[in-house]
Amino acid sequence: MSLSKSQLKLITSLSKKKYRIAANLFIVEGIKVVNEFLNSTFELEHLFCVDDTEYKNQINYTLISVVELKKISNLITPNNVLAIFKIPTINFIEKEGLVLALDEINDPGNLGTIIRLCDWFGIEQLICSKDTVDCYNSKVVQASMGSLTRVSVFYTDLEVYLKSTKKTTYASLMDGENVYKTTLPNNAVLVMGNEANGISNPVLELLDKAISIPRFGNLQQTESLNVATATAILLSEFKRGN
Amino acid sequence: MSLSKSQLKLITSLSKKKYRIAANLFIVEGIKVVNEFLNSTFELEHLFCVDDTEYKNQINYTLISVVELKKISNLITPNNVLAIFKIPTINFIEKEGLVLALDEINDPGNLGTIIRLCDWFGIEQLICSKDTVDCYNSKVVQASMGSLTRVSVFYTDLEVYLKSTKKTTYASLMDGENVYKTTLPNNAVLVMGNEANGISNPVLELLDKAISIPRFGNLQQTESLNVATATAILLSEFKRGN
Repeated sequence: MSLSKSQLKLITSLSKKKYRIAANLFIVEGIKVVNEFLNSTFELEHLFCVDDTEYKNQINYTLISVVELKKISNLITPNNVLAIFKIPTINFIEKEGLVLALDEINDPGNLGTIIRLCDWFGIEQLICSKDTVDCYNSKVVQASMGSLTRVSVFYTDLEVYLKSTKKTTYASLMDGENVYKTTLPNNAVLVMGNEANGISNPVLELLDKAISIPRFGNLQQTESLNVATATAILLSEFKRGN
Repeated sequence: MSLSKSQLKLITSLSKKKYRIAANLFIVEGIKVVNEFLNSTFELEHLFCVDDTEYKNQINYTLISVVELKKISNLITPNNVLAIFKIPTINFIEKEGLVLALDEINDPGNLGTIIRLCDWFGIEQLICSKDTVDCYNSKVVQASMGSLTRVSVFYTDLEVYLKSTKKTTYASLMDGENVYKTTLPNNAVLVMGNEANGISNPVLELLDKAISIPRFGNLQQTESLNVATATAILLSEFKRGN
């Protein structure tokens, strides 16, 4: 067995969002992360591995060479296995508790880190504006380290969602109320904005409250916090009292 | 004026730590970050720019072409200017307040994010073990976004420092005391460990207390937090009561 031309073509195409959508497939790499997906509700389409010891019970797998893996891998150091999974259909039914909503997060590393944070803080529902980077982008999948198997990521029109929710909605802003002095409810939506421009105006107008992480450094010069680190601190604030 | 061969050779060499140390120089790129360094105590060695409108009052600058900038830049999208600054001599005299100490942080993006966090939380002293990635690595400089001009980064033998300090020392561990239930002092050292292996044993033995960020997600499966996001949450905890 080895890699066919059509397989190579398919795998390469999946680096682009439009081909992922058309094929309804995405890529997961590395022994640890692939195992998390195999042990989840995600459905395997096909698996390619250099060593098949762990995968002999899989129906859909192909043994390939190290050179072939190198050719299809997006990692600097490919790690034995690359698997193609089906993109699941996610039906969003709002649950009790904290929902995190992202307004146009562009950086795959940031989205991956945020998915990992949701996993840590037990936030099962992550809502993304349609212009947020695709969570099945391979950089997001690798940065989220398997957390995507435990956090539902739902892409929708944020304005429509925010108009429909009964939860109290919070904007993360530079000039909101000091989050350390705010009593935060369990049942809420926290909205984080774009890396450069923050939360867009039409979304902002729909939100109930604004919170900020106070700045302790030089007030004139300090940079803003990166969106992933700001999300870490705010999720911690929502959860620490519970 | 344009880029000379020796200038090109020098700039290229500065991507390696040993040449940065030998020349005592490092690279800063982009209009915004370069301006922060120009307005700081850092000493400019030489500046290369495509448009010199902003730099006419600098003595040491060379006008170069877009093609030349592209050749020397480490950025995907070079932004008008690349400057070489002198590496300052940092004499560490421990101040009152919180000191952050890093034990072998390897990833330049993590170190850059952590320097930015120190800047935000007003932590002026960051101590790094000698095997932590160099803060004058261009990826660190760009990720820290000028925060390096306001945070002193000092590389030393962590064990020697920890033996000498009178502050209470805290280890960030997976199985420490719940940080949300711990009263944290103003005058302390927080130690964060390596991305894969955590805090090394000889360092760990010297620390007074261990704290953890509680996990709210699925206890069996959730990944650990990234070191930069864990640092964000712990610095926030040290500062939120003050």
